Amino acid sequence: MTLHAEYDPSNIFAKIMAHDMPAARVYEDEHILVIMDAFPQSRGHCLVIPKRPVRNLLALAPKDVGRLFGTVQRVAQAVDKALSPDGIVVTQFNGAPAGQSVFHLHVHVIPKFDSENFAGHGEAKMGDIDELKALAQKIAEKL
Amino acid sequence: MTLHAEYDPSNIFAKIMAHDMPAARVYEDEHILVIMDAFPQSRGHCLVIPKRPVRNLLALAPKDVGRLFGTVQRVAQAVDKALSPDGIVVTQFNGAPAGQSVFHLHVHVIPKFDSENFAGHGEAKMGDIDELKALAQKIAEKL
Repeated sequence: MTLHAEYDPSNIFAKIMAHDMPAARVYEDEHILVIMDAFPQSRGHCLVIPKRPVRNLLALAPKDVGRLFGTVQRVAQAVDKALSPDGIVVTQFNGAPAGQSVFHLHVHVIPKFDSENFAGHGEAKMGDIDELKALAQKIAEKL
Repeated sequence: MTLHAEYDPSNIFAKIMAHDMPAARVYEDEHILVIMDAFPQSRGHCLVIPKRPVRNLLALAPKDVGRLFGTVQRVAQAVDKALSPDGIVVTQFNGAPAGQSVFHLHVHVIPKFDSENFAGHGEAKMGDIDELKALAQKIAEKL
């Protein structure tokens, strides 16, 4: 059962949290990390990642759900203020058949611009790290 | 600015909450309504709807975010127990350009089955009400 498999700490978000991999960081505290998606589906695509060893939303302790999505809301509001998108998609995939590709729970905050194409999940190209860091800074200023 | 337009109470979810429109109800309390999506993208597609007059996640009071997504988690867990899907997509659209079609905040919980096609948002056909009610009952039993 994919949805109930054990957490595997050799995933890329665990490595980013341990500073073993680089990322364009937007926000971090003891509970949560917010980074720019390295394969952005649009300009300003953020990931909100709880610092808990869980694969997906089913496994998160109920007491941690409010903090995670409270941060998701604040990130969405910051993206809105920083980039003035026309829409914002919030999405979270549980299990590979649902589209999950990194098996550490994370929530996507994806701004949508009428004037720009929106890459599908898994179709996006790797973003330029300097551009991602500049976007991270812009969003962080509004958090 | 679509994302910051005023709430319009003439939306279908407000009518369902007022019992002016039918729906296959899964769960309801004073704060939240959970129904089966009338145009399901897959078998077991639920909507979690806060009883607050807000268009989208940006406008929800921060104090209400934890309760909303706590319910989303519980619904996802109930869908998992009731239907044993291979994956579950949790998604929430803010603004028409992001895919929002009813302008009352709601969160989709969409099970994904390896063996079944997954209709895109806006591509799904209307579900059979009796079938939706049977699914609602099955999920409610696991909540």
